[in-house]
Amino acid sequence: MNIILLDREEISGDLVTLRDHRAEHIVKVLRASPNDRVTVGIINGKVGNGIIKELGQHQPYHVKLRVILDKMPDTPAPLDIMLALPRPIVFKRVIRHLTALGVDQVFVVNAAKVEKSYWESSVVKEEGWKRYVREGLEQAVDTRLVEFAFFRGFKPFIQEVIPEIKDRYAQMLVAHPESKNEVTSIYKAGKKPVLLAIGPEGGWNEYELEQMRIQGFDQFSLGPRILRVETAVTAVHASITLLRSALR
Amino acid sequence: MNIILLDREEISGDLVTLRDHRAEHIVKVLRASPNDRVTVGIINGKVGNGIIKELGQHQPYHVKLRVILDKMPDTPAPLDIMLALPRPIVFKRVIRHLTALGVDQVFVVNAAKVEKSYWESSVVKEEGWKRYVREGLEQAVDTRLVEFAFFRGFKPFIQEVIPEIKDRYAQMLVAHPESKNEVTSIYKAGKKPVLLAIGPEGGWNEYELEQMRIQGFDQFSLGPRILRVETAVTAVHASITLLRSALR
Repeated sequence: MNIILLDREEISGDLVTLRDHRAEHIVKVLRASPNDRVTVGIINGKVGNGIIKELGQHQPYHVKLRVILDKMPDTPAPLDIMLALPRPIVFKRVIRHLTALGVDQVFVVNAAKVEKSYWESSVVKEEGWKRYVREGLEQAVDTRLVEFAFFRGFKPFIQEVIPEIKDRYAQMLVAHPESKNEVTSIYKAGKKPVLLAIGPEGGWNEYELEQMRIQGFDQFSLGPRILRVETAVTAVHASITLLRSALR
Repeated sequence: MNIILLDREEISGDLVTLRDHRAEHIVKVLRASPNDRVTVGIINGKVGNGIIKELGQHQPYHVKLRVILDKMPDTPAPLDIMLALPRPIVFKRVIRHLTALGVDQVFVVNAAKVEKSYWESSVVKEEGWKRYVREGLEQAVDTRLVEFAFFRGFKPFIQEVIPEIKDRYAQMLVAHPESKNEVTSIYKAGKKPVLLAIGPEGGWNEYELEQMRIQGFDQFSLGPRILRVETAVTAVHASITLLRSALR
């Protein structure tokens, strides 16, 4: 946890009292003392410092902070992700990777190679994903909650949702290990918003790739090595981010 | 598992009989039948096809293959890694990420922020890491076993081992979130071998960074967001790999 995230409703005046895992983190991991400063941020708002006014060293831990919020977090790359729903245990880690790396919105979709049971997991059904988003933000010192939207039908998503949102993007890309295109040769979005599609373990099938092609997605590959979804998500995000930073 | 990895001793003539998890994978996951082909490779050797001659559908599974080995796997980037030993559960995943992405050798070292207990884990002590290397290769369709070497003292590694091996590398790089250098502006190794240092959760300390600077490591950062080791390893590897592929 590199930032203490607060909900706006928790603050009264400029004071907030924490009694949960955040208080425990300040006491036990940061080993803070009164008048020490910790990095704080408001969900979807500014970041700044929290000055420790009171601190209960023993269980139940409590920490009272005076908060000074003075700057917006760095703006991440306007990168949206279209992700075939991974196996729940992998999905949890993928959420942490993506929110730490920085994304705006994630469209989680079905695909032929997504097992039906994945849709019944608590990460999807009981909004379990929110916890991992928060962990990713706490890691990366960001406050902007990443939006996750779930689409259990691939066809309605690609044929109805994509046509409505495609104008937001300068380019839509799909990572496909069998593509002959290197990302450096086909990337043309500069620093403008991009939608990046990442398939299931085993890949998109021919129908799905064809549907994406019809909508204007450009295929690329990071090379001949076949990567697990978890590795691929980070590798593809890092590659696009590097391309953006090199184009100035 | 995208390739069935074989040890050379297992093959007699051009035949091999499998009775372990590889046989189970061929029967249950690939659902192969006699005369089907599966991708096979010899550890540290060629890749090719295995033609199924016999197949036991029920437990105990067995599969007899005739193997035709006709090509070397793609050569990965000559990228060596110097890695501060992560927490064991993270280390297992990092090994899979790195071997799937492609590395030659990994020097696992101590650092001030590495907990002593990590060195006692079975991944290190009982060569548990070998299993995860194999899983990474099975994923990425590679046969070259990645070498892991362990150095429990940071100082002897940096002051004695590095001077002996540094001539192998066109550049030594250390990822450091507080560095002002972007990797695109300091990378100068072209496609030549690189040694890439990745620190512990919480980062290298000042002494460690200074020792690396003395030996000639160049610092860079992927941006202001603080990444977990697991995310950072893949993001940094992908970024260097992309830089190499863009330089032709």
